Amino acid sequence: MNFKQAEQQPEGFAVPLQEALDALHFNTDGLLPAIAQQHDTGEVLMLAWMNRTALEETLATGQVCYYSRSRQALWRKGESSGQQQHLVSAALDCDGDTLLLQVDQTGPACHSGRRSCLYVALEKDAARITSAPLIDPDTLYGKA
Amino acid sequence: MNFKQAEQQPEGFAVPLQEALDALHFNTDGLLPAIAQQHDTGEVLMLAWMNRTALEETLATGQVCYYSRSRQALWRKGESSGQQQHLVSAALDCDGDTLLLQVDQTGPACHSGRRSCLYVALEKDAARITSAPLIDPDTLYGKA
Repeated sequence: MNFKQAEQQPEGFAVPLQEALDALHFNTDGLLPAIAQQHDTGEVLMLAWMNRTALEETLATGQVCYYSRSRQALWRKGESSGQQQHLVSAALDCDGDTLLLQVDQTGPACHSGRRSCLYVALEKDAARITSAPLIDPDTLYGKA
Repeated sequence: MNFKQAEQQPEGFAVPLQEALDALHFNTDGLLPAIAQQHDTGEVLMLAWMNRTALEETLATGQVCYYSRSRQALWRKGESSGQQQHLVSAALDCDGDTLLLQVDQTGPACHSGRRSCLYVALEKDAARITSAPLIDPDTLYGKA
């Protein structure tokens, strides 16, 4: 898939999935940013990263798998916390370098125990925490 | 702002804005990914990048300014196309390395003339274009 040519195509135009995956513009670390959005409320839950293997596993299994940059390993969302993301749909952007995942998130998406990772509001003069944990993270990760 | 410590703080906890900006985790190119979401419909419009200057200008002016990686320059959204993004609110994630912008987007966010950049659905066997341009891009960029 040539993304530059595809942008001129009408709604409904399609290419084989593998052709699109072969044309993705991964960054120099072999990763794409993936935005996870709760499919029914529209809340943006988090941004994480995927390599091709993580994306293919996600599409094949319907359970979201990222690539952890800190652990340098596949990160099957919820494998430690139990808070999985079920994939509802996935989309690429016009440049083939960003993913948007519509998901059904069990409980908190954030390791802090909050529903969403995007909880620090940038106000005029302050940065302010805008939500409380749903679950104590020590409970989430089996430390309590 | 120490993001690791802040995650344990309750809703309402705040630090001065400059302290949060000083603690952002920019990537090795000095950039953060910024997700733009239409504030009232929840539609994710695009992902682009900001350096600190772009973020500070955006917060100061209320008009979204990114950093263009291809042009290596500040990119005041809409400066060529007229399709501006007015900032409604901005938030950081738990790690201080992702931005979520709630915006009010004039017309199409995408350079292809589509409302959103996220228009290539990844289906079981195909990648399929799911929306049509609102405006011909040649009109948008004054070529027609």
